[in-house]
Amino acid sequence: MFQQITSFQNPKFKLALSLMERRERKKEKKFLIEGFREITRASLGQQKIYELWICPELFLGDNEAALIEQIRLKGAEVYQIKEALFKKLSYRDRPDGLIAVANCFSIPLGQIERQIQGKSRALILVAEGIEKPGNLGSILRSSDAVACDAVISCDPRTDIFNPNVVRSSVGTLFTQTVVEAGSLETLEFLKNQGFTLMAATPSGDVVYHECSLKGKIALVVGCEQLGLSALWMDSCHLKVNIPMLGVADSLNVSTATTLLLYEYRRQNPL
Amino acid sequence: MFQQITSFQNPKFKLALSLMERRERKKEKKFLIEGFREITRASLGQQKIYELWICPELFLGDNEAALIEQIRLKGAEVYQIKEALFKKLSYRDRPDGLIAVANCFSIPLGQIERQIQGKSRALILVAEGIEKPGNLGSILRSSDAVACDAVISCDPRTDIFNPNVVRSSVGTLFTQTVVEAGSLETLEFLKNQGFTLMAATPSGDVVYHECSLKGKIALVVGCEQLGLSALWMDSCHLKVNIPMLGVADSLNVSTATTLLLYEYRRQNPL
Repeated sequence: MFQQITSFQNPKFKLALSLMERRERKKEKKFLIEGFREITRASLGQQKIYELWICPELFLGDNEAALIEQIRLKGAEVYQIKEALFKKLSYRDRPDGLIAVANCFSIPLGQIERQIQGKSRALILVAEGIEKPGNLGSILRSSDAVACDAVISCDPRTDIFNPNVVRSSVGTLFTQTVVEAGSLETLEFLKNQGFTLMAATPSGDVVYHECSLKGKIALVVGCEQLGLSALWMDSCHLKVNIPMLGVADSLNVSTATTLLLYEYRRQNPL
Repeated sequence: MFQQITSFQNPKFKLALSLMERRERKKEKKFLIEGFREITRASLGQQKIYELWICPELFLGDNEAALIEQIRLKGAEVYQIKEALFKKLSYRDRPDGLIAVANCFSIPLGQIERQIQGKSRALILVAEGIEKPGNLGSILRSSDAVACDAVISCDPRTDIFNPNVVRSSVGTLFTQTVVEAGSLETLEFLKNQGFTLMAATPSGDVVYHECSLKGKIALVVGCEQLGLSALWMDSCHLKVNIPMLGVADSLNVSTATTLLLYEYRRQNPL
């Protein structure tokens, strides 16, 4: 049997709960991973898990026991709690009874350098100042789908450990090289590595699907409200436009990003 | 000067506030439109506005007065309220001081028939059972961008008048033909009108960008959790796949929809 925790006042429970706040994640260097699929992918991605909070009443499938055992054997504490406590810790409308506590990670730009060494083709996604966790997560889901070499979140307004980033990435946060870095160091890194910087803007010279995408491409996308900063826009060599035939002048950032990622992959099949 | 309302207990304020709930929208047949851009587009789209709630402290630009006057002249009551009341009525993190109350509309399938009469090419988007307002709104933003002939929301789990649908559609809900209808009547309508039904599925026979999209196409997309129902999937003539090169087996529904809409438009430029 697993250790049962029954009180909202339990210090371990309170600490886990505090990780819903960015400030506490930063202080504790820990974050929450909710959901069977997400925890499975975190475990696949070598993410160290310290604690697992479970609520068997909420389990949806038959494979929870195996996943719990696998994570327990890797050294995690397992705490069993009742539905009322679990729902407090959960971010979801329909929780599935599994929440892990893991260590925040920090991947240096140098790791990308090692990964792409010797490659003549590479695709990196740079997301500047994204504000909504749902957009950042959805972007990660798409970058996974096209097998981006890396994602760099620059000067983010939402941290990659936000529960809704984890959720809307469906756990692909853990199976890719995702780096948080400042814009200046990222720009320097990309220039040194010989990347062509590409952005979408209404004034772009060429329609995105008529532009030849070759070699090492860094697709740079900006925040929801304001788009790319001047620093990034001025640094981009390749400016494409996405045809907008209606009344709105832009797409949602995650849908625009997906269009461009898939256009790269259409031209550069694996 | 406009009529000032200062109490949370004011019946008009309470009625407006109640429209954040789907049940009340359905009962009152009214809904909220928040934001300068959204209200402007609603007004452009011939949407009748009954009330305008304003909070001048929160205005972000210089054009509010003109918009308010234009809407007042069309017969709307204008109520001025303080920030505390406004924030209660607002759905946004950063409200811009403008919220309209408008009549829910209901467009029949017959209107689409009239619009596409005599056309040999047409694009209709069918969204089945979408659950998250942010996804439905983002889909509308993309269907506007590619100039879809119409959008049909079938058996929706979120109504198109949800404040977050209005917001994430950036008001394109009002500038397109958006129909809510049942699946059976929609299927019959599309068959009678000679549409080819198209869906994306992992088992699709052909990659989405290698498939020839001609004539009248209805792109059918399903709900976040479960995808398309068997009723719709079995009715689709054309099944395409979106390459998934990572660990996840699907994209976010609004990003996948956008990819396919833009592929149609790439092959069928206006």
